[in-house]
Amino acid sequence: MTSLDDLPLRDELRGMTPYGAPQLDVAVRLNTNENSYPVPEAAVAEMEKALGSVLRDLNRYPDRDAVALRTDLAAYVGHGLTYRNVWAANGSNEIQQQLLQTFAGPGRTALGFTPSYSMHPLLAAGTGTAWVDGLRAGDYTLSAEHVVAKIREYDPDLVFLCSPNNPTGTALPLEVVAAAVETARGMVIVDEAYAEFARPGTVFAPTLIERYPRLVVTRTMSKAFALAGGRVGYLAADAAVVDAVQLVRLPYHLSAMTQAVARAALAHTDALLSTVDAIKGQRDRIVDTLRGWGLPVADSDANFVLFGAPRGDSKGVWQALLDRGVLIRDVGLPGWLRVTAGTPEETGAFLNALEELL
Amino acid sequence: MTSLDDLPLRDELRGMTPYGAPQLDVAVRLNTNENSYPVPEAAVAEMEKALGSVLRDLNRYPDRDAVALRTDLAAYVGHGLTYRNVWAANGSNEIQQQLLQTFAGPGRTALGFTPSYSMHPLLAAGTGTAWVDGLRAGDYTLSAEHVVAKIREYDPDLVFLCSPNNPTGTALPLEVVAAAVETARGMVIVDEAYAEFARPGTVFAPTLIERYPRLVVTRTMSKAFALAGGRVGYLAADAAVVDAVQLVRLPYHLSAMTQAVARAALAHTDALLSTVDAIKGQRDRIVDTLRGWGLPVADSDANFVLFGAPRGDSKGVWQALLDRGVLIRDVGLPGWLRVTAGTPEETGAFLNALEELL
Repeated sequence: MTSLDDLPLRDELRGMTPYGAPQLDVAVRLNTNENSYPVPEAAVAEMEKALGSVLRDLNRYPDRDAVALRTDLAAYVGHGLTYRNVWAANGSNEIQQQLLQTFAGPGRTALGFTPSYSMHPLLAAGTGTAWVDGLRAGDYTLSAEHVVAKIREYDPDLVFLCSPNNPTGTALPLEVVAAAVETARGMVIVDEAYAEFARPGTVFAPTLIERYPRLVVTRTMSKAFALAGGRVGYLAADAAVVDAVQLVRLPYHLSAMTQAVARAALAHTDALLSTVDAIKGQRDRIVDTLRGWGLPVADSDANFVLFGAPRGDSKGVWQALLDRGVLIRDVGLPGWLRVTAGTPEETGAFLNALEELL
Repeated sequence: MTSLDDLPLRDELRGMTPYGAPQLDVAVRLNTNENSYPVPEAAVAEMEKALGSVLRDLNRYPDRDAVALRTDLAAYVGHGLTYRNVWAANGSNEIQQQLLQTFAGPGRTALGFTPSYSMHPLLAAGTGTAWVDGLRAGDYTLSAEHVVAKIREYDPDLVFLCSPNNPTGTALPLEVVAAAVETARGMVIVDEAYAEFARPGTVFAPTLIERYPRLVVTRTMSKAFALAGGRVGYLAADAAVVDAVQLVRLPYHLSAMTQAVARAALAHTDALLSTVDAIKGQRDRIVDTLRGWGLPVADSDANFVLFGAPRGDSKGVWQALLDRGVLIRDVGLPGWLRVTAGTPEETGAFLNALEELL
């Protein structure tokens, strides 16, 4: 039998395993920051209607430029953006891959600040981009001074910021983003996958797009819009950035179904976002309860919480929770675990199981 | 206003324009080798049913490994293949991009034989892979001797073959594929997007998979399955190749809708493939008619025909056909044009319009 080692793989892939959390069949799944609420009936009905009008014509290629969807996404983001400022793809992973292909790639360098979204360095590797790590402070915060110093030190072609940061959960002050763009020669990507869950008063990077043509904000419909299975990510930026990624995008990358379903979801924005408030309530419940138990907990602007495992035993606690039917995420930070805020019942199941382990 | 030139684009992208045929609103569109027949009602009903059971749960990520879909695709390809031999993605473009990321990329070389599918060199460029062109004979055929000589000359990490070849339409003898794999040190990709349209007696590369672990066959549901808008491409190969591409695939790259729709289509294979015979009839009608008019025509095993434009005036004839409401493809080969075989009516409209230009 042929094994991976018998094939002429790229050297840097040897010994690697595919990225991804275990997909286990567990009653309470709080490991991938999914939205625990199913798509509301009214949105499902609209999706069915929209799909009904595209299925028969699937013999034709979809709109390669997805203009109608981009128009709807621009209206949702606001700030006077139009479809010329927005680009969509199969998840924000594909968006970020396209940005790396356009502005980084072989011979160029991307800078990130870990712990952060663990796909950023993998996407850099997959596009032949060198990765440099600016790291974070011991408490996982990120200051403008630190970001500026690391940009000066590494002179990267592309900078990844993440706000709210995954897996720590905390949003970045807007001045950190502005300082990064003012300092960097290259592009600055702000991954705002969890923006809709931020605490009141948080201001996000789309407000800066008009000022900074090298700033790109990436978003997703997977979380607040409960559309993880639909695979829709997008970027908002200067129109020139949208022109640029079209030089590397695969033609017809976004299926007619995806375009139709995403537009139907956007037509029911209020209903879909109504779950966000409920999830924020459970998120705050987790933060307050765990802090009440004396566990260290990072401030969260997301639909998940990073907390210190009892006795610092992140591996043991992860397994003990799984044994109790609750799947959370070991993000590889010794002593820390990440849990998604679910429904009140799911959150309760997690808190009850964790309390047994104190 | 910011322009592309103001952004820190990769040098090799400067001056490029996005790939893709014009998407024009014309009555008779025979330019992108779409299947002219809409999806049959029975298959649409099955798709609607399948989607009905996934839309509500789109808040959850899809099966990252798409095992059910891969199982169905393996059964369709046959030759004793299982899901472990098959991988699926958003169109065969994404499949080929993943193969380049896995087995080619920066510092490595891909060899193709143009004129062939024009995305191959673009996908190589997008993944930082050096591209070398082995070219074809003056009549666009490709012999085993020529392929072997070019592989020895360039020692590529990855070889692209295309059978039936786009844009010329002719299938490769299987011994050309075998000679390529026997000679090459690297991977050999055979792009068989149009396999189902081949003339009787044509044998395709899946028969060789058991023998050659470095052989990869890529296919699509866009053409014979009339699913261009659904974006489903796949590969068939040794199971180790499938393990390998999972090291570079984006996690959850294939939406729950795509997996459901593709499976519904595969459940109606007979109905969907019934259009193939009709299209082959029109393809042969075009070949015979144009040869009857004395025009040069390449042998076609595909759903399209490459023919010599009257007076060698490919640009003028393309425009004159468009003026008559018939959109075909100028593939950039001076003197030649490519037309998709459509319905009898569409084919008739093309032939009538062309006859006026003789």
